[in-house]
Amino acid sequence: MGKPKPDVRKLTPKSQDFSEWYNEVVKRADMADHSEIRGCMVIKPYGFGLWENMRDALDRRIKETGHKNAYFPLFVPESLLKKEAEHVEGFAPEVAWVTHGGEEKLEERLAIRPTSEAVICSIYAKWIQSYRDLPLLINQWANVVRWEKRTRLFLRTSEFLWQEGHTCHRTEDEAQEETLKMLEVYREFLETELAIPAITGLKTDAEKFPGAQQTYTVEALMSNGWALQAGTSHNLGQHFSKGFGIKFLDEDNAEKFVWQTSWGVSTRLVGGVIMTHGDDQGLILPPRIAPHQAVIVPIYRDDTRDKVLEGARSLWKDLSAVARVELDDRDGFKPGWKFNEWEMRGVPLRIELGPRDLDAGTAVLGNRVTGEKEAVQLSALREMLPKKLEAVQADLLARAKAHRDENTRPASSLAELSEIVEKHGGFVSAGWDGDPATEAKVKEETKATIRCIPLKSGEPEAGMTDVVSGKAAKHRVLYARAF
Amino acid sequence: MGKPKPDVRKLTPKSQDFSEWYNEVVKRADMADHSEIRGCMVIKPYGFGLWENMRDALDRRIKETGHKNAYFPLFVPESLLKKEAEHVEGFAPEVAWVTHGGEEKLEERLAIRPTSEAVICSIYAKWIQSYRDLPLLINQWANVVRWEKRTRLFLRTSEFLWQEGHTCHRTEDEAQEETLKMLEVYREFLETELAIPAITGLKTDAEKFPGAQQTYTVEALMSNGWALQAGTSHNLGQHFSKGFGIKFLDEDNAEKFVWQTSWGVSTRLVGGVIMTHGDDQGLILPPRIAPHQAVIVPIYRDDTRDKVLEGARSLWKDLSAVARVELDDRDGFKPGWKFNEWEMRGVPLRIELGPRDLDAGTAVLGNRVTGEKEAVQLSALREMLPKKLEAVQADLLARAKAHRDENTRPASSLAELSEIVEKHGGFVSAGWDGDPATEAKVKEETKATIRCIPLKSGEPEAGMTDVVSGKAAKHRVLYARAF
Repeated sequence: MGKPKPDVRKLTPKSQDFSEWYNEVVKRADMADHSEIRGCMVIKPYGFGLWENMRDALDRRIKETGHKNAYFPLFVPESLLKKEAEHVEGFAPEVAWVTHGGEEKLEERLAIRPTSEAVICSIYAKWIQSYRDLPLLINQWANVVRWEKRTRLFLRTSEFLWQEGHTCHRTEDEAQEETLKMLEVYREFLETELAIPAITGLKTDAEKFPGAQQTYTVEALMSNGWALQAGTSHNLGQHFSKGFGIKFLDEDNAEKFVWQTSWGVSTRLVGGVIMTHGDDQGLILPPRIAPHQAVIVPIYRDDTRDKVLEGARSLWKDLSAVARVELDDRDGFKPGWKFNEWEMRGVPLRIELGPRDLDAGTAVLGNRVTGEKEAVQLSALREMLPKKLEAVQADLLARAKAHRDENTRPASSLAELSEIVEKHGGFVSAGWDGDPATEAKVKEETKATIRCIPLKSGEPEAGMTDVVSGKAAKHRVLYARAF
Repeated sequence: MGKPKPDVRKLTPKSQDFSEWYNEVVKRADMADHSEIRGCMVIKPYGFGLWENMRDALDRRIKETGHKNAYFPLFVPESLLKKEAEHVEGFAPEVAWVTHGGEEKLEERLAIRPTSEAVICSIYAKWIQSYRDLPLLINQWANVVRWEKRTRLFLRTSEFLWQEGHTCHRTEDEAQEETLKMLEVYREFLETELAIPAITGLKTDAEKFPGAQQTYTVEALMSNGWALQAGTSHNLGQHFSKGFGIKFLDEDNAEKFVWQTSWGVSTRLVGGVIMTHGDDQGLILPPRIAPHQAVIVPIYRDDTRDKVLEGARSLWKDLSAVARVELDDRDGFKPGWKFNEWEMRGVPLRIELGPRDLDAGTAVLGNRVTGEKEAVQLSALREMLPKKLEAVQADLLARAKAHRDENTRPASSLAELSEIVEKHGGFVSAGWDGDPATEAKVKEETKATIRCIPLKSGEPEAGMTDVVSGKAAKHRVLYARAF
């Protein structure tokens, strides 16, 4: 439950200053807080409740696809981190180093894991001997640390929570299949649970994970027209298995290196939910992951207090069997104040219950997304509520899809691309000849990067050319500015 | 699924070398592994599956008692750790220190949290202003690091997983009530889910948490006669709120310091389960938390393979609706080998299914605890299985209770106490005059310590005297050697 918040100022409108709007929503919806520790956030109970629901929904999918959870050490000895050259180069600049244990100086520095490939690969090398040990399908939920210079709550913090899958396979094909399977798990999870429609695609070399052979991504478009990399799935090839000596004896009695994948999503997704669905009244949470799917606000004066609260409690008990329902029975706060608070916190449905409603056997049901209110029969609510919640979930997804589709525009030249990025933001669909120089040039001019080569329709259209070089396009790509 | 393990050696018997037995069981039951990183373990999927079930069962109880989960930073700046004098003295010697972020040296060293009182209190000081903000009831699931010199898998590792509750209250009485409430939650959780009967009691000053006013404990007796501190609940009084300035404006308009508690249990409990229930054939897992509650082992030759596997799969589908059932359909392993493996891994019930069973519509049900086998009707299994699992759970608890009661002996002198500790181990019930010198003397002579002053019957019996001083006892206490 929240505490008295005398802060009744309106939020800075999204259209005026998106970044400020975001910070205000995170704070005033009681999702997270800065800490005194550089770049580290505190995830408050309301924000953590949202993350728990997301985590559980994804964990179920990870297990259903045959993976098991495990837990590996927080520390990565410097020598291990260095075993894969690209990997250490990518991560060393943002690593926090432990140099002392108790009173003594360590012989070797320990990195706090920025990601766990190095430590896990060193252990897999001991575990795997034979083709019978494959595939090895393991996931862990953990905290990781990347020493960030500029931080934003949820979106970029020095410590964050995530899951990281680490798998080993017998063949290259199997590893590729796994990489794409988990990418699809992410896409479906984002769409079904978070109501975020995401595009799956391949990252260019400039944006791939240090040490990966290929990085695939799920890219979502936020409501300000910037893209968010919502999750990644890496085909690691044999880069790490060769570096760490993860070998197995195959059925043909030959010793071979395993083929690997890794994939992860993080608490950054909480930021994605906020930026996809929130509006100028605050947060809007998709019902499937909302900590409170509906809130009951009893409306009473002194002489009707007992009666209304009794009715509200009985309704709360009844509805709690079918949904996560909160009863706001705090005295000393006016109903209007409570309405604002729960709007700010993005609860999908509000149920208002006053003395006259109670006499008439009705309540007023308010919808956070549409702003509509309707009178409903109390006796029908229990059956109606799950359907209403599904409808809100569907509305949010449809709205986000429409926003993305309206904000995906073709460009055939750098000038056109530039103008779209400046004027509208969103995804820009354009031809690319495959040369990193084009990508660099576009980034320099527009701050937009290639978000991905989409898995669906990543083939260039007939006659499509690169926006910079004018050469024939090898791919159709999506450019956007990104968080 | 496990991989081929040619290791068919018998375990070292518990009675011969308990410590060696423990290490072998942890390894051969595939629970955990050492890592190259000093004192850190890897929790393997089977061990982690067990921890997940324990965690979920406890998390439910923590939420049902009104607490919410949140997440606080991994790092504790040195200056924060130093704000409570006893606290820093207790923990500084075992802290891992971060001194560098990326390329730069930090201005202030950061401790990896050994426990989170310091970081959380510094944040609570910002959050709490008024009596309306109280009680504040928060829990977090996290990793913590204590730089241990001598480590044992699960029991004592440099990094471990745990939950830590941190609450703030308006009055001293409320804080004491919370402290005891969570102690009881632990006791009931241990008994119901882990089949570990635990004794609740107060720690002496020598054994209390650095910075606490009182520490309460749940103490369990392992099967070798040593005690395990399975969880602790601390009444912190105002020690931290004064150090960190956590003040609130009370209804009477006076500014006051809050009263606090903290409480935690850790992955150490996995070790507790192993040491309470395991036997010379390996692990025995309580059904309520076992990753696999039953395993189906099909018995076939080449000519009956298809038929038996089909029957086994159909049975597996049927039973999976009522329990966590594993089907061991691996080719190339003899049934006897599989029996041994699942015995080692402590699966409570085994269902053997051969071609003749199938024809007769029966199966053989084996009980891991009693070793009994019985023929059962396939058609009755689905209804029978949950009851059988409950019976195993009850048997384990009854066995552990009987073991504890048989191994709790009174002593009226140091010589007697010494003899019991040497000869039998177990709890020794004795009088204590409240003088730390007695406790120190007993520890020196016998390596036994006061595990607790039990909440139930901690009053001295008539005429009871201190085993060392011979003075009148203030309390009846339980002595034991402990992990």
